[in-house]
Amino acid sequence: MNEKDFAETFAAKLSDAVAQQQLDESVQQLQDLRPIDSADVLALMTPTLAWPLLQRLPNRATVFAYLAPDIQVAMAQVFPRASLAKIVGEMPADERTDLYKRLNQAQRDALLPALAQAEREDIRRLSAYEERTAGALMTSDYATLSAQMSVAEALAALRLEAPDAETIYHAYVIDAARKLLGVVSLRVLILASPEQRIADLMMSSVVSCNVHDDQEDVAKTIARYDLIALPITDDSGALVGIVTHDDAIDVVNDEATDDFHKSGGVSTMVGKLKDVSIRMLYRKRVFWLVFLVFGNLLSGLSIANFEEVIAANLVLVFFLPLLVDSGGNAGSQSATLMVRALATGEVVMRDWFSLLGREALVALMLGATMAVAISIIGYIRGDAVVSLVLALSMMSVVMIGCVIGMSLPFVLNKLGFDPAAASAPLITSVCDASGVLIYLFIASKFLAIG
Amino acid sequence: MNEKDFAETFAAKLSDAVAQQQLDESVQQLQDLRPIDSADVLALMTPTLAWPLLQRLPNRATVFAYLAPDIQVAMAQVFPRASLAKIVGEMPADERTDLYKRLNQAQRDALLPALAQAEREDIRRLSAYEERTAGALMTSDYATLSAQMSVAEALAALRLEAPDAETIYHAYVIDAARKLLGVVSLRVLILASPEQRIADLMMSSVVSCNVHDDQEDVAKTIARYDLIALPITDDSGALVGIVTHDDAIDVVNDEATDDFHKSGGVSTMVGKLKDVSIRMLYRKRVFWLVFLVFGNLLSGLSIANFEEVIAANLVLVFFLPLLVDSGGNAGSQSATLMVRALATGEVVMRDWFSLLGREALVALMLGATMAVAISIIGYIRGDAVVSLVLALSMMSVVMIGCVIGMSLPFVLNKLGFDPAAASAPLITSVCDASGVLIYLFIASKFLAIG
Repeated sequence: MNEKDFAETFAAKLSDAVAQQQLDESVQQLQDLRPIDSADVLALMTPTLAWPLLQRLPNRATVFAYLAPDIQVAMAQVFPRASLAKIVGEMPADERTDLYKRLNQAQRDALLPALAQAEREDIRRLSAYEERTAGALMTSDYATLSAQMSVAEALAALRLEAPDAETIYHAYVIDAARKLLGVVSLRVLILASPEQRIADLMMSSVVSCNVHDDQEDVAKTIARYDLIALPITDDSGALVGIVTHDDAIDVVNDEATDDFHKSGGVSTMVGKLKDVSIRMLYRKRVFWLVFLVFGNLLSGLSIANFEEVIAANLVLVFFLPLLVDSGGNAGSQSATLMVRALATGEVVMRDWFSLLGREALVALMLGATMAVAISIIGYIRGDAVVSLVLALSMMSVVMIGCVIGMSLPFVLNKLGFDPAAASAPLITSVCDASGVLIYLFIASKFLAIG
Repeated sequence: MNEKDFAETFAAKLSDAVAQQQLDESVQQLQDLRPIDSADVLALMTPTLAWPLLQRLPNRATVFAYLAPDIQVAMAQVFPRASLAKIVGEMPADERTDLYKRLNQAQRDALLPALAQAEREDIRRLSAYEERTAGALMTSDYATLSAQMSVAEALAALRLEAPDAETIYHAYVIDAARKLLGVVSLRVLILASPEQRIADLMMSSVVSCNVHDDQEDVAKTIARYDLIALPITDDSGALVGIVTHDDAIDVVNDEATDDFHKSGGVSTMVGKLKDVSIRMLYRKRVFWLVFLVFGNLLSGLSIANFEEVIAANLVLVFFLPLLVDSGGNAGSQSATLMVRALATGEVVMRDWFSLLGREALVALMLGATMAVAISIIGYIRGDAVVSLVLALSMMSVVMIGCVIGMSLPFVLNKLGFDPAAASAPLITSVCDASGVLIYLFIASKFLAIG
C-alpha cells in the first residue's frame, strides 16, 4: 500500500470514528504520525469531521500549518472563532502570516480581534512585505542573546525560548537597538565553559540578507554557506527575522518550477497543477500562443517573397519542416543551457562573449554532422544541387539557431526581463522565421525559377 | 566591487604576498573569510602559490573540500604526499570519498598508504556505492548514543564527538549491532533533566532512507520533513551514514538542472557549463539533433503525399510554419506542465485520465482562440475557404498537440524512461509531423487539386 492509499484508508477510518464520537483513540493514532503526515490525512476528511481531531492534537498548530492554503481557509470557516484564534496564535509566525494573507476581509475582521496584541502586531509587520522577498519568507520566532551574557546564562535563555523559537541551534547576538552584532551556535555553546562571555565566542561577521532581497537570493545564500538559518536585517542593520533551511529548499523547488514553466512558454502559475482552475490554465498559456501566431507570420512573409522558387521546386517544401525544426531544436538546446546557467549564477552577463566563441564552434560541429545527414536524404529525394542547397542551409540554420538560442537569454536579461522568458516556443519561432528566410534565400541562389 | 572582482583582486594580492614569503599575514586575512569564500580565492591562484596558504589554515580541510573537483586534483599533484594525506584525513568523510573517486590510479596508489586505517576503510566503503544514490551522498561522520545513557552522559558524549561529526544537533540511538533505534535532538537534550534516560526521550519512529535509494528521493524526504539530517540505513536496518540538509539543497539544484537540460533536448551533463569541453558539449547534443532530423522526415512524407494540393494552392505553404509551430508550442506548454508535476511528485501515473479531460477542455479554448486569430489572417491573405481550412486545422493541430504534449511524459514514464525526456525538441517534432498531416489532409478535403 503506497503513501496515498494509506492516507485515504486512514482518513476514511477516522471519519467513521469521529462520526461515532470515538475521538480519544483517533487522536492517539494521529499523534503517532509526523505533523505533515497528519495534515495529509486530515486534508482528506471533510472540515467538520477533521477539526474536532485537529483541535485535540498536542501539536495542532504545526499540523494546521502544513495543510494546503485552501484547506486551511476551509477549516477556518468551520472552526469556532475562539478555537481558531488559539490555534492561529500557536502557529509559527511565518505560517500564521501566510494564512492571514489568504483570508478575505470578513474572515480577517473576525479573526484579528481574537488574537493577542503581540500576534496582531506580528501579522501586521510581516504581511507588509512584498511577495517573494526575504520579508515575506521570514519568521520572527528566533532566539536572541546579549553579548554580555555568560554561556551559562545563554543556555538558560535558550531553554526558555526553545518552545517558541523556530530554531535554537543558532542564536543571534543583538544590542539594545536590535542591531545584529553576531551569531553563536548551540554547538559552540555546549563546548564552551559556563563562565565564558558570548562576546568572545560569537562570530561577528554574520552572513545575512536584507528584508527586501529576492527570495531566490536568500535561498542561494543559504545553499552557498550551508546554513541552518539565515538572519534577515532591515536597512538600519536591525535583526527582523530569520529564514530557515527548510524554507530555502522549498524556494529552490518553487523557483525551479517557475523557470521550468517559463521555458515551456507558460506564464508563472501559483498553486498545484491538479488544483488550478481551467480558466487559470487558459490565461497562463494563451498569451504566448497567440503572440507567436503573429510572430510566426514572419515565416509566411519569407515564403511569400520566394514563391516562385517554391513553385518551381516543390521538393523544397518536402524539406521545409525538417530544416527549420533542426534550427529550432539546436537553438532550444543552446537556450536551455544558457538559461539554466544564468539562473544558478554559474554564468554572468560578461561571460557572453567568451561563451559565444565556444558555442559557435560547437554549432559548427553539430551543423556539419546534420548537414551530412540531410544531404544524403537530399540526394536520394532530389539531386546533387538540392543536396548542396540542403547542406548549406542546414549548416547556416543550425549555426544561426545556436547563436540566437545562446544570445536571447542574455539580451532579455540586459533588457531587464527574466532570461527564462527565452522559452522553447519563442526560440523555435525566432529560429523558424530566420531558418525559412535563410533556406529559401540559399535555394533561390542555386535553383532555377519557373 | 562585486564578489567576483573582490576574489580576483584578493587572489592577486595574496599571490604577490606568497611570492615574497609574507605568509603569516596572508593566512590571517584568509582566515577571516568563510570557508567557501576562502576556497574561491585560492581557486584563482596557481596551485604552487595556493598550497602554502591552504596548508597553514586552521580550517584547511573544510576549505579544501569546497574547491571544485578539478582544482582539488590539481592541488593534490602539487602537495607533498604527507601534507596531502593529513588534509585528506581531516576532510569530511563524504567529501574525502568524492575526491578519492576523482583521482586516477597512480594518485590513489600514492595517497592511500599515507592515510590512517580507519580512513582507508571509510573510503573503501563509501566509494562502493553507485553514483546518485544515498550511499554516494552520505557521510559517515555522525553522532551516536546508546539508549541506556543518561542525558548528562549523552551531552558529554556529544561534546567529544562534536569536532568530527557533521552535525550533533541530531544524535542517533543505536544498539550493539548498529541497528537504528531512534533519534534525539540536541534541543530535547538541553531541555531535559540530566538524569533522564535517552530511551525515554528519543523518537523511535525515525524517518530514514535506504542506502540504495535514489538521491532525488533522499532530497524529497529531507524537504518534506524539514530535516536537518536524514539517517541512512542498509538492508538490515543498521545505520551507515547521514545526509544533511545542505547536501539535499544541492541535490535539488542538480536534479532541477538535469531536468531542465533534458527538456531542452540536452543529455545529462556533469560539471559547470563554463568548464565543460567542446567535445562533451557536442556529444551531449548531437544525438537528439540527428535523431530528430530523421524523425522530421515524417513531415516530409506527408508533404510528398499531398504534393498536388500544395502545387495548386501555394498559399498553403505560406501558413505551414505558422500552423505546425502553433501545435508544437501548445504541446510544449502541456508537456512542460506535466513533466514538472511528475518530477515533483505532485502528479502520479493514475492521475493521467482525469487530467486528460481537463487538458482537452483547455486545449479547446486555446485552439478556438488561435483559430479565430489565424482565420482573420487567412481571410486577408487568401479567401473564405482558406480561412475555414486554417481555422479547422488550427483547432485540430492545437488539440492534438496538447494531448500529445500531455501524454508523452506519461507514456515515457510507463515505458520506464524519464518523463523529462519528453523534451521540447521531441514534442515539437512529433507535433509538427502530426500537424503537417492534419493540415494537408483538411486542405485536400476543401481545396481543389490543380
